[in-house]
Amino acid sequence: MPLHPPLFKQLTLIGVGLIGGSLSAISKKKGLVERVVGYDIVSASLERAVSLGVIDEARERLSHAVEKADLVVLSTPVGNFNSLLKEIAGHLKPGAIVTDVGSIKGDLVAEMEAHLPSTVFFVGGHPIAGREKSGVDAATTNLFYGSRTILTPTRNTQMDALKKVALLWEGAGATVIQMSPYDHDRVFGAVSHLPHLVAYALMDVMLHPNLVTMDPVRFSAGGLRDFTRIAASSSEMWRDIFLFNKKTMLEMIELYQESLDRIKEMIVEEDRDGLLDLLNKAKTVRQKIISETG
Amino acid sequence: MPLHPPLFKQLTLIGVGLIGGSLSAISKKKGLVERVVGYDIVSASLERAVSLGVIDEARERLSHAVEKADLVVLSTPVGNFNSLLKEIAGHLKPGAIVTDVGSIKGDLVAEMEAHLPSTVFFVGGHPIAGREKSGVDAATTNLFYGSRTILTPTRNTQMDALKKVALLWEGAGATVIQMSPYDHDRVFGAVSHLPHLVAYALMDVMLHPNLVTMDPVRFSAGGLRDFTRIAASSSEMWRDIFLFNKKTMLEMIELYQESLDRIKEMIVEEDRDGLLDLLNKAKTVRQKIISETG
Repeated sequence: MPLHPPLFKQLTLIGVGLIGGSLSAISKKKGLVERVVGYDIVSASLERAVSLGVIDEARERLSHAVEKADLVVLSTPVGNFNSLLKEIAGHLKPGAIVTDVGSIKGDLVAEMEAHLPSTVFFVGGHPIAGREKSGVDAATTNLFYGSRTILTPTRNTQMDALKKVALLWEGAGATVIQMSPYDHDRVFGAVSHLPHLVAYALMDVMLHPNLVTMDPVRFSAGGLRDFTRIAASSSEMWRDIFLFNKKTMLEMIELYQESLDRIKEMIVEEDRDGLLDLLNKAKTVRQKIISETG
Repeated sequence: MPLHPPLFKQLTLIGVGLIGGSLSAISKKKGLVERVVGYDIVSASLERAVSLGVIDEARERLSHAVEKADLVVLSTPVGNFNSLLKEIAGHLKPGAIVTDVGSIKGDLVAEMEAHLPSTVFFVGGHPIAGREKSGVDAATTNLFYGSRTILTPTRNTQMDALKKVALLWEGAGATVIQMSPYDHDRVFGAVSHLPHLVAYALMDVMLHPNLVTMDPVRFSAGGLRDFTRIAASSSEMWRDIFLFNKKTMLEMIELYQESLDRIKEMIVEEDRDGLLDLLNKAKTVRQKIISETG
């Protein structure tokens, strides 16, 4: 039995997948919320979530799902956030808090704030967690254990709302880190969005007519295989991320092209020392990641 | 006890590391060779190989190591192959076979053939196997089990020599596949060398002054981490591979830059459908790899 009263009486989950389902499941288990009401455009996912016990009740209409919510968690692809908020804004009760689990913040946070009445509080969130599997069947109570969740307050963010959302994530096992919506998009543009884009481009090369005839993929060992793993997630999600984070992505691609050009030039010039130096420095990034994240 | 006579009385291993050590260990275990003599410029590795039982005897001088060899296996970085062959050519007995385990074939195979007298037979080889750990301590008798070894015969290759080297690899548990030295370098340029280059360029971006100040690497989750794994191997080895495979690498980088430019253009134009189509097609490469290699 939990030792403290729940943070929220009713959590309403919009989008019942891996991330939202896992947050719901651990929140119920830890007594962080009294009940979870769910909504999803795919009614089979919603039914599955109820039968798995991931949520308590399903609602067929969005307005019914949110009208009694103390906390609304947006857990759909980020491309739907603005239209969802427009639809629910008039149905939220005063004092309700809205948060999200999207990989994009930046301008989107200000847009989302603007959709809501002044009696409702928005807190941008992004849990850094995932599995290779997706969907509500992959939801698990330990997904966030030992992970980090970024919250992105702005000057409009109400401090009490921020604190309660932070406590929810900490209760779910995550460490909460705050940064501005724009810093968030640059940091994750670098360590997540660019790597995915680079991997997609590599897959695309394998389909080039010059290569596809010799069917090189038959011989893929560690090298290519490690890259394809990160291309396993939803194409729609990554399309949206690349477009929502457009300005940062274009900057990151440019930096990447500079690095690629420099390496190409070293190969053209057969600059053995320069190339070795670059490769050795590149390895320090790996060492840093391993020393920081184990 | 092996059911057949050994393929080779004396195998001489030049360069006692993960790959050579594993080939030696399994060859001894399966009775494919009678004894293994080793040579390495790092005498500690050589002593370690003897004490681990990976090789039978160590030699301090290269000429002594190879003079009675029936099979010489070059298992050093590819950058040393030509000078090693020049040094041993005059010490090999008639009928000896020389093979290698290098990741580069192409022109190098013809160069290596040219160093050897007509009484000695060269067979180019490349086992597609590895572990994250390197060095003789990581050598294991099951490294090649279920793997593939590429042999790259030319019109100069003697058929008996090719057959015996193929039998050795099959005895070690590998499936042998033949292709020309140039096809080899294009195939592995695509599925191995380009992915490594792309990963090194990504690490290099993280060190760019624009990014390093915000220390994004603190937040690396799956995305970046998967890339850094393939940057774990020896910088010298990859420098050599990129330079030896220069012509193919420049072609691959160009194809890669085309893909990157196309994706960038789609982001600039906010071409939602085009981008989704490209990402979906890219995913088919992953599906193909999984279906072919499990």
